[in-house]
Order: sequence, then structure tokens, then C-alpha cells
Amino acid sequence: MDTTATTTNTATAADVPTTRQERLDHGLEVLGRIDSEAGANALAALSDISPELAHQVAAWGFGEIYDRPGLAPRDRQLVTLGMLTALGGCEPQLRVHVNASLNVGLSPQEIVEALLQSAVYCGFPRALNATFAAKQVFAERGLLPVTPDA
Amino acid sequence: MDTTATTTNTATAADVPTTRQERLDHGLEVLGRIDSEAGANALAALSDISPELAHQVAAWGFGEIYDRPGLAPRDRQLVTLGMLTALGGCEPQLRVHVNASLNVGLSPQEIVEALLQSAVYCGFPRALNATFAAKQVFAERGLLPVTPDA
Amino acid sequence: MDTTATTTNTATAADVPTTRQERLDHGLEVLGRIDSEAGANALAALSDISPELAHQVAAWGFGEIYDRPGLAPRDRQLVTLGMLTALGGCEPQLRVHVNASLNVGLSPQEIVEALLQSAVYCGFPRALNATFAAKQVFAERGLLPVTPDA
Amino acid sequence: MDTTATTTNTATAADVPTTRQERLDHGLEVLGRIDSEAGANALAALSDISPELAHQVAAWGFGEIYDRPGLAPRDRQLVTLGMLTALGGCEPQLRVHVNASLNVGLSPQEIVEALLQSAVYCGFPRALNATFAAKQVFAERGLLPVTPDA
Amino acid sequence: MDTTATTTNTATAADVPTTRQERLDHGLEVLGRIDSEAGANALAALSDISPELAHQVAAWGFGEIYDRPGLAPRDRQLVTLGMLTALGGCEPQLRVHVNASLNVGLSPQEIVEALLQSAVYCGFPRALNATFAAKQVFAERGLLPVTPDA
Amino acid sequence: MDTTATTTNTATAADVPTTRQERLDHGLEVLGRIDSEAGANALAALSDISPELAHQVAAWGFGEIYDRPGLAPRDRQLVTLGMLTALGGCEPQLRVHVNASLNVGLSPQEIVEALLQSAVYCGFPRALNATFAAKQVFAERGLLPVTPDA
Repeated sequence: MDTTATTTNTATAADVPTTRQERLDHGLEVLGRIDSEAGANALAALSDISPELAHQVAAWGFGEIYDRPGLAPRDRQLVTLGMLTALGGCEPQLRVHVNASLNVGLSPQEIVEALLQSAVYCGFPRALNATFAAKQVFAERGLLPVTPDA
Repeated sequence: MDTTATTTNTATAADVPTTRQERLDHGLEVLGRIDSEAGANALAALSDISPELAHQVAAWGFGEIYDRPGLAPRDRQLVTLGMLTALGGCEPQLRVHVNASLNVGLSPQEIVEALLQSAVYCGFPRALNATFAAKQVFAERGLLPVTPDA
Repeated sequence: MDTTATTTNTATAADVPTTRQERLDHGLEVLGRIDSEAGANALAALSDISPELAHQVAAWGFGEIYDRPGLAPRDRQLVTLGMLTALGGCEPQLRVHVNASLNVGLSPQEIVEALLQSAVYCGFPRALNATFAAKQVFAERGLLPVTPDA
Repeated sequence: MDTTATTTNTATAADVPTTRQERLDHGLEVLGRIDSEAGANALAALSDISPELAHQVAAWGFGEIYDRPGLAPRDRQLVTLGMLTALGGCEPQLRVHVNASLNVGLSPQEIVEALLQSAVYCGFPRALNATFAAKQVFAERGLLPVTPDA
Repeated sequence: MDTTATTTNTATAADVPTTRQERLDHGLEVLGRIDSEAGANALAALSDISPELAHQVAAWGFGEIYDRPGLAPRDRQLVTLGMLTALGGCEPQLRVHVNASLNVGLSPQEIVEALLQSAVYCGFPRALNATFAAKQVFAERGLLPVTPDA
Repeated sequence: MDTTATTTNTATAADVPTTRQERLDHGLEVLGRIDSEAGANALAALSDISPELAHQVAAWGFGEIYDRPGLAPRDRQLVTLGMLTALGGCEPQLRVHVNASLNVGLSPQEIVEALLQSAVYCGFPRALNATFAAKQVFAERGLLPVTPDA
């Protein structure tokens, strides 16, 4: 599988046959573009219990859905931050996606603002939990304090 | 209160005193920019049971949070679509925000794509319910069928 | 089982043996004190599919938990309104409990205020859905418009 | 693609290349084995708004996950009934899966019993909503009243 | 702003102009009446990431909604305990509000009873998690064991 | 109460009078059959805060519902795994029920497969959290790595 094939989205490409392994490789390549570490660690932790779940997160979640061309990576992260905040109890996944959000171009200010917006729709407890999850990521990346955009 | 004051975000403006009425007027003005009808109908339906809830949705939700400058209206809608989809059981609010999303510049294709993304994080039932809520709005606005971006 | 036994809470009474039928009768008696119609209708609708679920709602939910002496009926309704609002998608049960809340002494103003409080913890969509469910009940009972306490 | 290939699960088969169309055909075949009508109607309703969501429900949800050999169809339905009940607001999907549950060998009594079990873990409102969703399906199929197993 | 103004609810007062700072001061004063420590710590932890979220929790959540006269503080806590239990994953907020509940006059017995009531509506897992959160607060305040009211 | 009576389900037995203590004893006996340790620890931890909640989990949840004859213990665990995964934030309860699932005859492979199925209905974050909760239990019981059925 050459690089061109790897970066062509399977959803829109001509319907060329692909193997499970090719779909996985493509998903891992998409994941690597967004987040090289936190996501990979989560998948590795699945290897001795549910390698199939790891496969599907990468091959389907990232390779087949996330990589579709109809919505920019930055926009996908905004939607995802909203969903993970609303679901509750998804702090590990929020940290992965706060990292990913920074990697695809959202600023800390925009992320904080998106989580503030969640107070209106999900209430303060969800907004607080999500903001503290973001704070952990920002601290690890030396991005605190977050200051309002000039 | 002159127009300038009305459109200045209270969160960032110099801390000038405002009345409850001024904050409400400002929120209604923000709401009117985004969605002139569905939101207004919901607020009107509250008038004989909880006018304070209507006041707070407008004055606080729209006037104080939504109107903050740190995140574009289009981006706020993306986050909100994610939250409403994940919460479940918020189809009336989803229809308001699908309308608002179209009004602030999201294309039907982007909305559909955002809701498809929710399948990965919230599962298919939430994605399906949200997509059917969007379908109602698109039908009312003559936007069906949604075709992939050229 | 005499009336005294029926209205003595099984949880605190001396540990006298009771039959399933006695526990059911007691639960129905508790339910009848709170809400004579909406709850009974829901239980009746279960008779041809899950009479055991109807039994448990009455005998356990009302007869064994709701009837415990440690919290006043009015207070139990406040907690319950909060839970049903937060859960989402429980509009039929909210209507039963808005009725029950009125029956045990909460005023329409207090109910509306409790649902407004939910905006802070659950977000506006849940608060709106719950308030509209309450509005249906208030309309049926001729309690609209709700006016602030004098 | 011959029939043998169609019914071989892609997850466990030798990693033969497949096209998107083949994966869809396989998923539809799996779906058809379980539920020939309600599921198909839902997918058809997506055709003018999100054909990709319909594709993924069939090709991925049914063709790739549901069809895996490690859990019997009957067992998958039990898990799914539990999830849909707990999520709340998924009555349309519950009806599809109550139908599917009957089609793969669960008895009405077992379904009712599973939904009663949900009272313990999700509370009565979710149990009630799910039971009433099941009642609609049982009524359509002439399965009421449900009587205890002899 | 004199003390009288501070303790006058902005929602019902004559519509006098207020500044953001005054609204914040008022909210902090309300919060201080209820809980002087746990809530303040949470707000302080937001100072380097989302001071606006801290502002809104205090100024809007406490100063504008919680302080409204239509429902007693004790009753607001009951509703809130119900909501936080039902939402799930809000253990930090539950601990703040169990503390606040004690501070505004709910007894440990009433709190335990309210959380037992949640078993009926939210199921045992939510009731258990909430009860263990309350246990932490009771332990810190030397209130264990909780004994039935005499 | 002789052994026969203890193991006879109260729901289907002739309606013989039972005491609270007998119903508790029966529930504890059912719980002991399924899980002798994790569940018992949770109940013990309630003894100084909410012994009534412990009583109801055992006497009602296990003794009255779980023990009903209409659904096999293994099937009840499958439904329960689905519910706990979908609810989110119930990792302690999931660990109890993963243990119980193993004890009543589900294989590690079936449990992993059930949790993979949840990705379709609840999304990946819930599926991941549940799988990592299962991994803790499997590790404690020396069941890692989980290998596909031969």
C-alpha cells in the first residue's frame, strides 16, 4: 500500500478493495496525524484484552469516519469536545481529544470557551469536570495560565 | 441603551452597570441574529409558567455566554450540536440549533457530517435520533436531499 | 390486614411477617394518598405485559421506599423532580410526579422554581423539557398562569 | 462475491480484500437475518439526508460487529436491550431490537424479565419506558398478554 | 454596594443597574453563606484556566438563580442532590452539595434518605455512588455513623 | 426458614408471609451464590451510613428481582453489563458484575465481545471505560491475555 492510497479516504475513494490490515494501517496513520501518544497508549492498553476494540477505534473511528473530507479536523474536535463533555465520565477520552484539539489548530482559548459554552447546555458540573480535564492537558503542555485572546 | 451598547458583549466590555432589562434586550438581540423564530416560540411558550427561565435562556445563555467573542458562532453551534446529540431526548432543542447552525453558516453537509461523527462517540441510536431531527428542519427549509459536497 | 397495619411502614415496624399481597396493598395505599389517577393508569397499562413491574413500582417503590418516615413526602417529591429532570426522556414520569408534588403540598411556584434550578446543574434543554412537562399538568389542573408568590 | 464469502465474518476471515459495496452487502445480509423490516425502514429514511450513516449502521454495526462469532445473536440482543434501556430516549431503536430479539429466539417472557431487571440498575422510569416500547411491538405481533412461563 | 443591596436578590429587586463585579460579589456572598470552603476551592482552581466559568458559577449560579426567593435553600439542595445523583460522574459536585446541604439545615439522616430514594428512580449504581460520596463528607465532619432519627 | 424456603423465589412461591430479616437472608444467599466478595464489601461499606440501602440491594435487588426464574443468571449478567456500560460512571459496579459474570458462566471472551458490542450503541468512550474496568478484574483473576475462542 503506497502513501497515496494510505491518505486517500476509503469512504470517497473509488471502491477499491481493501484488507482489514490496510484499513487499520490507514486509521493508525490518521490517528498519528492528530495525536501520536495518548491515543496510541490507550490502544496499546487494549492489546491483551480486546485487540478488536483497538482495531475498530483506529480502523473505523479514525480511518473511516474521522478522516472523511466533509468536516475539517478542527471542526470534528469541536463537536467531539461537546459530546464528551455532555456524556460525562469520559475524562480519559476528553484528555485525548483536548490534546488532539490543540494538535489540529484549536487554541487553548477556544477550547476553554467551548467548554464554557457547555455550561448552558449540560449544566455546570459537566462544564467543570471537562474544564479540569483540559487543565491537566494544558499543564502537561505548559499552556497555563490561559489568557483571553488579545 | 444605544445600539452600540446592545451589540457590545457585556463579558468583555468595560464593567458598565446594566439593568436586567438591558441584559434581556441584549440576549434577545443575539438570539434574533441567530434564529428569529424557533427560539422565540420556545421562549413565548414559557411566558405563563416560567418567564424567569425564558429570561435566563435569553439574557444569560445567549446574551452573556453565546455572545462572548472567544469562539465564532459557527463553532459554538458545532459544539452545541455535539452536546445535544450526546444528551439525548433533546430533539426540540436540536431542531432549534440545526436551524441556527444553518443561519450562521454551517452547510447541511457539515451538519450531517457532524452528526455522523457522533456515532463514534455516542453510538448509533443518538446519531440516528439527531439525524432525523435535522431531517425535519432540512425538509421544512427545502434542503433535502443533502448531497455530498462537490 | 387492618388499616393500622396498612399504614405502618414496613421498614420501621417490628419485623412482622407480610405477604406479597399485603406489601402490594400497602404500596397501592401509599400511592393512592399521593396520586390517585396518573400513577394508577401507568400501572394498569402494565397488566398485560409486566404485572411484576407494576407490582414492584407499587409494593417496593411506594410501599417500601417512598413511605419511609425519614423524609417528608414533599421533600421526596423535590428530590424526585430533580432526578427525573436530570435523567431526561422521562416526561411521562415527570407528569406523574408534578401531579404528586401538587398533591403533597408543593405550590406551582415552588415546582417552577425547582425546575429553574435545574438549569444550573443539567443545562437549559433539560430544564425546558421539564418545565413544558409541568406546564401540561398545570394546564390540566387550571393552574396557569403561574404567578410569582406575593 | 459468492454466498459463502457473504456469510463469512470479515473479522475472522482470512484478510481478503473487500470493497465498500461488499461490506455493505454483507451487513445488509446480516441485518436481514435478524430483522427484515423495521431496521430496513430506518435505513431507507436516511437515504436523502445521511446515506453514509445508513451505510455504517449496516456495514459496520451489523456486518462487522454484530456478526462476529464470539457471542450468540440472542446474547447480543440481551446486551443491547440493556444498553438501549439505560441510555433512555431510544424508544425507536428499542422497538427495532425488541423485534430482533424475538426473531433470534428470545421469548416475550425473557424480554419482559430483562426489562424488569433494568429497574434495579437504571431505575423505574427507564424500565417503564422500555417496557411500554416492548408492549407496542408485542401488540403489533399479537403477543399480548405476556404470561409467565409455564 | 452596601450590605442590604448585596443580600437583595437581583432577580426580584427593582431593576437597578449592576456591574459584573457587583453581581460577582453578590454571588460570592451567597456562596459564602452556604459553603465557605469546598466551593471556593473549586472556583480558585479555575483561576488559571477559565476564570469566566468561575465567575458564572458564582455570579449566575449562586447570585442569580440559587438566591431567588421562591424556594428555600434547604429545598434547593434537595433538588440538587437529586440532579447530581441522577447525572452520574458528578461526585466532586455532590460532595460540595452534601456539605452545603448540611450547612443549610438538612440532617445526615435526611440526606441519606434522599439518596436512598434515588435508587427507585436512577437505580442502585447511582444511589451507591452518591451515598459513598456523602460518606466521605460525613467522615470529614465526624458525622458517622448515621443513625436513624430517634 | 429452612433451606428450601431460602432458595425458593419469593416472587413465585405461594404467597407465604416473610419477615424483613428473611427477605434479607434470602437476598444475601442469592448474592453469595453469584459473588462472594466484591458485592459483600460494598454492602459492608454502607453499614455506617445507609444500612437500609445495603438491605435493599440485597433483599430487593438480588433476593426479589435477580432471583426470579424467568431469565437465567448468565442472561441477567449480560443485560446488566449492557446497562452499566451505557450508564457510564459505574466502574465499581461493573467490576462487581464482571466478577459475577465470570462466576455464573460467561467466558472472558464473551464479556469482551459484549463490551465491544456496546461501541455500536453507546460509542467508543463507554466501550473503552467498560473494557478497562473488565481488564482490572481479569488481571486480578489471572485471566489475561484474553484470547479469541479456539
